Amino acid sequence: MIGVSIIGGSGYTGGELLRILSNHPEVEIECITSRRLDGVPVTKVHRHLRGMESLEGLTFKNIPPEDIDSDVVFCATPHGVSMEIVPVLYEKDVRIIDLSGDYRFEDIEVYERWYGKKHTGKLEAVYGLPELHRESIKGSKLVANPGCFPTGAILLLAPLVKEGVIEERIVIDAKTGVSGAGVTPTDATHFPNVNENVVPYKVTSHRHTPEIEKELRKLSDGDIRVFFTPHLVPVTRGILTTAHVFLCEEMDRETLLELYRRFYRGEPFIRILEEVPSLTGVRGSNFCDITLEVDRDGRVVLISAIDNLVKGASGQGVQNMNIMMGLDEREGLWFGGLAP
Amino acid sequence: MIGVSIIGGSGYTGGELLRILSNHPEVEIECITSRRLDGVPVTKVHRHLRGMESLEGLTFKNIPPEDIDSDVVFCATPHGVSMEIVPVLYEKDVRIIDLSGDYRFEDIEVYERWYGKKHTGKLEAVYGLPELHRESIKGSKLVANPGCFPTGAILLLAPLVKEGVIEERIVIDAKTGVSGAGVTPTDATHFPNVNENVVPYKVTSHRHTPEIEKELRKLSDGDIRVFFTPHLVPVTRGILTTAHVFLCEEMDRETLLELYRRFYRGEPFIRILEEVPSLTGVRGSNFCDITLEVDRDGRVVLISAIDNLVKGASGQGVQNMNIMMGLDEREGLWFGGLAP
Amino acid sequence: MIGVSIIGGSGYTGGELLRILSNHPEVEIECITSRRLDGVPVTKVHRHLRGMESLEGLTFKNIPPEDIDSDVVFCATPHGVSMEIVPVLYEKDVRIIDLSGDYRFEDIEVYERWYGKKHTGKLEAVYGLPELHRESIKGSKLVANPGCFPTGAILLLAPLVKEGVIEERIVIDAKTGVSGAGVTPTDATHFPNVNENVVPYKVTSHRHTPEIEKELRKLSDGDIRVFFTPHLVPVTRGILTTAHVFLCEEMDRETLLELYRRFYRGEPFIRILEEVPSLTGVRGSNFCDITLEVDRDGRVVLISAIDNLVKGASGQGVQNMNIMMGLDEREGLWFGGLAP
Amino acid sequence: MIGVSIIGGSGYTGGELLRILSNHPEVEIECITSRRLDGVPVTKVHRHLRGMESLEGLTFKNIPPEDIDSDVVFCATPHGVSMEIVPVLYEKDVRIIDLSGDYRFEDIEVYERWYGKKHTGKLEAVYGLPELHRESIKGSKLVANPGCFPTGAILLLAPLVKEGVIEERIVIDAKTGVSGAGVTPTDATHFPNVNENVVPYKVTSHRHTPEIEKELRKLSDGDIRVFFTPHLVPVTRGILTTAHVFLCEEMDRETLLELYRRFYRGEPFIRILEEVPSLTGVRGSNFCDITLEVDRDGRVVLISAIDNLVKGASGQGVQNMNIMMGLDEREGLWFGGLAP
Repeated sequence: MIGVSIIGGSGYTGGELLRILSNHPEVEIECITSRRLDGVPVTKVHRHLRGMESLEGLTFKNIPPEDIDSDVVFCATPHGVSMEIVPVLYEKDVRIIDLSGDYRFEDIEVYERWYGKKHTGKLEAVYGLPELHRESIKGSKLVANPGCFPTGAILLLAPLVKEGVIEERIVIDAKTGVSGAGVTPTDATHFPNVNENVVPYKVTSHRHTPEIEKELRKLSDGDIRVFFTPHLVPVTRGILTTAHVFLCEEMDRETLLELYRRFYRGEPFIRILEEVPSLTGVRGSNFCDITLEVDRDGRVVLISAIDNLVKGASGQGVQNMNIMMGLDEREGLWFGGLAP
Repeated sequence: MIGVSIIGGSGYTGGELLRILSNHPEVEIECITSRRLDGVPVTKVHRHLRGMESLEGLTFKNIPPEDIDSDVVFCATPHGVSMEIVPVLYEKDVRIIDLSGDYRFEDIEVYERWYGKKHTGKLEAVYGLPELHRESIKGSKLVANPGCFPTGAILLLAPLVKEGVIEERIVIDAKTGVSGAGVTPTDATHFPNVNENVVPYKVTSHRHTPEIEKELRKLSDGDIRVFFTPHLVPVTRGILTTAHVFLCEEMDRETLLELYRRFYRGEPFIRILEEVPSLTGVRGSNFCDITLEVDRDGRVVLISAIDNLVKGASGQGVQNMNIMMGLDEREGLWFGGLAP
Repeated sequence: MIGVSIIGGSGYTGGELLRILSNHPEVEIECITSRRLDGVPVTKVHRHLRGMESLEGLTFKNIPPEDIDSDVVFCATPHGVSMEIVPVLYEKDVRIIDLSGDYRFEDIEVYERWYGKKHTGKLEAVYGLPELHRESIKGSKLVANPGCFPTGAILLLAPLVKEGVIEERIVIDAKTGVSGAGVTPTDATHFPNVNENVVPYKVTSHRHTPEIEKELRKLSDGDIRVFFTPHLVPVTRGILTTAHVFLCEEMDRETLLELYRRFYRGEPFIRILEEVPSLTGVRGSNFCDITLEVDRDGRVVLISAIDNLVKGASGQGVQNMNIMMGLDEREGLWFGGLAP
Repeated sequence: MIGVSIIGGSGYTGGELLRILSNHPEVEIECITSRRLDGVPVTKVHRHLRGMESLEGLTFKNIPPEDIDSDVVFCATPHGVSMEIVPVLYEKDVRIIDLSGDYRFEDIEVYERWYGKKHTGKLEAVYGLPELHRESIKGSKLVANPGCFPTGAILLLAPLVKEGVIEERIVIDAKTGVSGAGVTPTDATHFPNVNENVVPYKVTSHRHTPEIEKELRKLSDGDIRVFFTPHLVPVTRGILTTAHVFLCEEMDRETLLELYRRFYRGEPFIRILEEVPSLTGVRGSNFCDITLEVDRDGRVVLISAIDNLVKGASGQGVQNMNIMMGLDEREGLWFGGLAP
């Protein structure tokens, strides 16, 4: 059994880690921390999980990272908090999966510019997108789990960028559910403000932009310019990503779909579809559904759908854990979505 | 391994049976029928299940019930259709779980009056609510799986009715998601008619009324009068049932909660709560959450929440199968809900 | 022209007063106050009203009630705040319409018990439900505008209670949209907590209970016991009220509908329907739609639908103003709802 | 008074015409037709309008266009039906506003290619976007009311295209509510398929593409290539349009906003905003809200919001009627939106 701890377990990604790990046959949840909720049973907060034996008796603890000694530690902490905690864990004999943005950038300056805060210092970390970096994840001590938008966007564009057949400008228009904004109520998540609405935000300035761009650049010989605009839509879970690109040379749809099928051959969680993906096809699951269509003038529209809390956060974290610990990558994650 | 067939697998309950059974370690899905979709892969219709190996290669077949030879057959067929199919299966060496209303009534006349159709003839059947009829289910050949509203309502009221402490009039005000209406688009399920709306329907004439009433009457010494009014609310899954009753004698909340805890002791899927249940606490799971509050004048408000497609249909069907086949009742069903 | 001021205009009822009054041909909006937003243009907060000339140049002002000198003053202030402001206004030559609960009770003790605060002192006020108290409203200086739930519930039950044909126990099961909770984000209004959910709250203890009860008692010879349970549903606007009562004597549906039609004859905003009311039939309008059905055992199910921000708050406030000022009661309010 | 008839009044645009026209001081609704609903009162179908005197006694009539003799006739008929009806009306002394796509194209071949049907023959018509073609609308006999997506897209891009400062490729990513799909239930509008979902459709082949393109080309010296992708989102009303373009020369946000303010100076229904538009800002109103942001590399993101049934259909139709008949353009349309 693999001992697992979760730092910062009271939010949505913490709850989702519990939902997945409580059914993972190789995992024992040893510790889950929360500053605010010391002593509170986890199923008092994550009520949908009441009854699960593996969570029975588990209470949130307010303990410092130095006192945590599991095989694997998930940091479900916000940006800025992780970089206080991870260095402490890094000194210990644990494997770390950090769900924040703090260790996603090789170039600390990019982080500091887009996140608007000083970094405590770089650590050796692997960007935890298994479909691109599986081998490095295997041996890594610290995995920086990708952001939700970057997961949907990078998986959507990687094959085309790698193949070197598109122009450098990539326009990405994403639609996200509200759970991505976290558990804390704000004006932006107030029901009457979200319901019956579509709200563009950080129209040219979302910090997932450089994360998408640096990963796509690694795959490309030429330049890549990512233009990213997210929209909040009145759904709880899911990200639908629409990318608009132009081919350098003529290619038809079937050729491109074949390119995608080949690129993702053997990937358990990538499904290349003939029809358009949609959120209800992936809700609650770790799948990323992808299709594309070719327009006149070599325009290609690419569409992906993920559950932002699963493949876009906690599910991918568990996938990374499985890889790091030499387990079947699908362990604990091998279920279809919830539809309707 | 238990061989399972599903008759009428293209709807929501069929899809939900597939979602659950494809992860059930003791089950092999042998056959799934559809008149309309002969030859179509099941994951073409239930797209959220693409990738599940146990469903790979599985296509809908248009074959008659006499050609079905599994250990267990689920009839996910509508009222009126089941009573054509079940008698054929009944002649064979199979166990049958019928999700329609056709075999739920001991008194065929009640069925014919409320369903407005002639019945093809009574068969020995057990009403498949495990919490009340587990022993009978064990040995039964034909289980009549309860309706969605009756599941939430009967579980909510059984302990109080059995105890004989309430007046005979039981007012039940239920709120249901739209998936209960099935996959076929109608005016009632047209998005602009449901969204931003609450729609009472069959205000005094819903046919789940006699189903609830006859089960509660079995538990009671005196008379029971059920007054049931359902409302359609703009959610996809879930039934929230509010029952309004009056005590014959003074009792406080803690005494009543204790009565419920005792009545349901050891029941894996019943959770008696201190706080109010809500749909997001049970979505996607087989749990039934229950609480109650005591008002002045001996009024008690009881509230239950279920997922209408799981505990209210397919999940309960699998629970019944587990009982019939001597498996752990929780097999294939032991997961928390999906929240948020 | 009637000069109007609004105290506390930054919330939903303030916005709704502006929406209605900015199109009212007899009204000039002179002043709108807000402690927090001094100097901010009103259309910066109520953005949907940008462009309306009558609001151009209008900014929130942080001024005390003693400096307000309009013909009519609306207090769109919370419970507890109104009773600080209204006494000041009461000394002046203004007509007051208070949207809070502070002056709705003849019996201050009831208020203090249910609202949990000491009252600053009773003032002569009329309960502003025009269909019941039109004549008193005409001459009144202070109108206590009814609560949202009481509006839907009292209008629904008044004819039957007045007629003296039902038993004393009245069970009311209400379903409300989220805008009733106001503009301030809370856990209860956080989108992922409301969406795909139905949440019962204050199941036996909502303070609109005594408000409904005391108004119905005025209409009745015998006793009246109101049992009220509200539910939050994932819609922004609207209240659907379902009342469950029992007749003392046999009466059929048509007789009862006729009783309702007679009771509300000439009422512009009451529509007695044959079919079930629903929220989309009244959204954005000042109408209250009502129907009823008769069950066995003399049970009657009554259903009403209102827009909680219009007939349940600001629209009714304007209706009261029209009555107080001798205008056509429909002035500024005579439009159909927004559907779909 | 202007006599108005509506051909095909049972759908959403018919209902919206009634909602607006029943409050229009200069209009008398003389006739409303429906093949299916001959003799049915209009408020039986458009229930939210019950009580409006101007609709009392009005019933749908199944009469042919040759028997219609109003000053103005709205054709709220589908594509293909209008071109059977309009030629008949065209022979008579009536002004026609056609809400279908049948007369929107100067080039009939384009219509036939994208709509997949033979046209009955061109007629002299004006494209009814008042902000671009007000003068021609004034004198026209037949106005082709713009499509919903084109309204939001053309108004969003016209100033920039006219100024000649952007590259020729225009990517438009639109998000639409479900009411745009009409009153007839289909799989695409079935609540469980729309709710909690985002569904891209006609990803490269929507027939509003050539409509947008031909209007923008009229404004441009160079070439214009429109790439349009719509998405269905779980809201009832509204279209949020996001356009992604690149500047040929460097310009900052303020310069561009000023360009927009100048272009639309005096336009009553266009609001150029500093903040992002959203659907709740325009719902129920005839406004089109617009803003834009400038990114690196000269990328501009432009965003508009309209109510698809008002500015995107019936409201714009009434605006066109007002212009044709020499009325104040805002008559009957001068109200803010419904928010929250």
